Amino acid sequence: MAPTPELSPETLARHLAVLGPASGFCVAYSGGLDSTVLLHLMAALSEARELPLRAVHIHHGLQPQADAWAEHCRQQAAALGVDCPVLPVEVRRDSGEGLEAAARRARYAALASHLQSGEALLTAHHADDQAETVLLHLLRGSGPRGLAGMRAQRPLGRGRLLRPLLPWSRERLRAYGDTHALCWVEDPSNAHAAHDRNWLRHTLWPVLTERWPDASRRLGRAAGEQAEAETLLRELAGEDLARHSPGPGLAVSVLARLSPARARNLVRHWLLMAGLRPPPRARLEQGLADLIRAGRDRQPVLTWPEGELRRYRDRIHRLPAGGLPPWPGPDREWDLRVPLVVPGVGVLRLVRADEGIVPSLIGAEGLSVGRRRRGERCQLAHDPGHRPLSKRFQEAGIPPWERDRIPILRRGEEVVAIANLGTAKRFTARPGYRLICEEHGPDGG
Amino acid sequence: MAPTPELSPETLARHLAVLGPASGFCVAYSGGLDSTVLLHLMAALSEARELPLRAVHIHHGLQPQADAWAEHCRQQAAALGVDCPVLPVEVRRDSGEGLEAAARRARYAALASHLQSGEALLTAHHADDQAETVLLHLLRGSGPRGLAGMRAQRPLGRGRLLRPLLPWSRERLRAYGDTHALCWVEDPSNAHAAHDRNWLRHTLWPVLTERWPDASRRLGRAAGEQAEAETLLRELAGEDLARHSPGPGLAVSVLARLSPARARNLVRHWLLMAGLRPPPRARLEQGLADLIRAGRDRQPVLTWPEGELRRYRDRIHRLPAGGLPPWPGPDREWDLRVPLVVPGVGVLRLVRADEGIVPSLIGAEGLSVGRRRRGERCQLAHDPGHRPLSKRFQEAGIPPWERDRIPILRRGEEVVAIANLGTAKRFTARPGYRLICEEHGPDGG
Repeated sequence: MAPTPELSPETLARHLAVLGPASGFCVAYSGGLDSTVLLHLMAALSEARELPLRAVHIHHGLQPQADAWAEHCRQQAAALGVDCPVLPVEVRRDSGEGLEAAARRARYAALASHLQSGEALLTAHHADDQAETVLLHLLRGSGPRGLAGMRAQRPLGRGRLLRPLLPWSRERLRAYGDTHALCWVEDPSNAHAAHDRNWLRHTLWPVLTERWPDASRRLGRAAGEQAEAETLLRELAGEDLARHSPGPGLAVSVLARLSPARARNLVRHWLLMAGLRPPPRARLEQGLADLIRAGRDRQPVLTWPEGELRRYRDRIHRLPAGGLPPWPGPDREWDLRVPLVVPGVGVLRLVRADEGIVPSLIGAEGLSVGRRRRGERCQLAHDPGHRPLSKRFQEAGIPPWERDRIPILRRGEEVVAIANLGTAKRFTARPGYRLICEEHGPDGG
Repeated sequence: MAPTPELSPETLARHLAVLGPASGFCVAYSGGLDSTVLLHLMAALSEARELPLRAVHIHHGLQPQADAWAEHCRQQAAALGVDCPVLPVEVRRDSGEGLEAAARRARYAALASHLQSGEALLTAHHADDQAETVLLHLLRGSGPRGLAGMRAQRPLGRGRLLRPLLPWSRERLRAYGDTHALCWVEDPSNAHAAHDRNWLRHTLWPVLTERWPDASRRLGRAAGEQAEAETLLRELAGEDLARHSPGPGLAVSVLARLSPARARNLVRHWLLMAGLRPPPRARLEQGLADLIRAGRDRQPVLTWPEGELRRYRDRIHRLPAGGLPPWPGPDREWDLRVPLVVPGVGVLRLVRADEGIVPSLIGAEGLSVGRRRRGERCQLAHDPGHRPLSKRFQEAGIPPWERDRIPILRRGEEVVAIANLGTAKRFTARPGYRLICEEHGPDGG
């Protein structure tokens, strides 16, 4: 393996360039050694190259010294000429996921919403953190996604999360801190590091590195192989997904033709595409087999803490834990001019089509969207007469839990269009516009 | 995770059933604890179910006690009513691959040739061996194939290799040995275990299992995930291989359209299909990019200790290390009645075709196969006249290193057919037979 270069603003800049462009940088600054080194490096880089740079300190409020840490960070950042607001987050101790996981979740949610469009949040995770992550996942029996460890980059809020220090070891960071006489506090984030990780760091790691001093680089290389395998497995899932006829969910007939391992791979990545964390291996293995084997008239459900898979007729649908939220509140006015975001439902917009909503309706008054009404009927473009919406939904294979979420566009009390399904005859023109509703992507938080 | 069942002849039988049928079993019996337990279990099973069972002891001749070990094994096996021949192998100390690797290679080669058709060779590798293998591969920075550890089954010689004890820990084996008052020697195969593995077993493992007593089961589960990922990656490679137009080697244009990671995945599995061990990651990454980018007129080569990749025109070819052997010796008589095996070249046979060798030639006298002769010419079915073979090979895109290996069928001095290429006009009938030559599969040893 090629040796890791020295740690300096220049080598960091080169590595940042590999991770892609950003409109500005924001260092997640805890006050510990790692993020202090990162902030110092970035401050030098920002000055030399006039890059927009700021920092942010997360105040978890979990430790009595939290206020002092926040003050320390503000002062250190100010001395480097970097603005560093303090972002308080509330960590729920009773969430059942453990304190470290809860703190992590709260921290990333706060950072995601804090990030500006196109901005890169930088965290100071280094090669030893990565090695610990890989080992912990191995000891949990994880697959490639877990063994790939922390990604060097991923989307976060309106920007991206970058981990530019992953190639360097804790020792290198320490040396940099000493050389530049940096001032740091005992890393507050270590204070609530999980027991397993602390044990790994303080008991196993010294034994391991006595024999393999470059263990973290070796594990980093293994993580890179796993990330690559995971990318290829995602591509395979993408190709298997393309075999499905269009429509919501996955076709059971297509899943049944794949080997069980390949069907699981498809479902796992299809869940991740929607921002849902897949169920544990054994649960998915048994549950998916049950969903595929179930009779067409049954509606089996596979639930796990983060989501649900439900069979309806010949398709399997993915849902967040606890099912999908209903249409939020009453109908909304919408004049069709710009896309409409309906929280929990999706983004509504018009797309040009050979046949659809008459263009003169765009900008018209009296338009609104909302959920279906009891007993509502309409006549779509090619219908001989008016028919109940409930009948249509059933025929279109729309599962029961979706039916109260399908956006209906109306003019006054009259149905103009049903999202993703069709336009009422009386409002149809050629060419025209189709009303579509697309799910939000995962929030990446 | 479900707990591992007790170790008994019945639970072993159930696990063996999962690994598939065999015409008989042969235990690789070193005399150490692990294989002594396996032999004892199999002897009980063989008696209860009348399964054909034998054992074999490998005599490496590396230790002064080797003769005594062999004698011990013969006696112990005899006491169980099991035949146990001693198979001497010669381990080359100067092979450059290290003593453990050399001993391993020699051992498996001897076992492969010893195995009868359909027979299963059983080795006593257990869950702790597997965990060590996984950790060692992780510390080498290996990908999924390495992290998958030892396979529970694979082809070997004319039969298969099975590792039926992988679900059970060393401790379970030890307990079984104690319970049944078995008699074993300090495992001779440990005597030349590599330093890394010994260090792992005696230094790292006790630290790890103090915190995670079930570490080997966890690592075994991770290995299972990796084996599954590797299977899916092989399927992906198979689909990418199917995109290639027929012909020898891989088409550069198709490889160039794949992402670099996906092209490497294809090449890696395509090499494995031919029994060639792929080059190390960095070597393949750089070398494959060079092969793809090279001009059509250049003939770049990527070599590594186990093989070669060579570009010729628009295709990339795989070769064993040192290239392909030439046609072995002089021409051979062959009357076309049964397939002809030509060592190092392949298997020659006739297949029915709309047009080809006239059936009356089958069984005729004066037929022979051999390599091309200097200046040889022939007129194939649709040729206007006689043309040099060298010209034909060039036009057919047959790389230079293959041209002296292509089998030519002759009657007397006259060319009847060129394998995989065509039949001489004068010997052509409709319908007839095409002469094809297929490579041997990997020997699986």
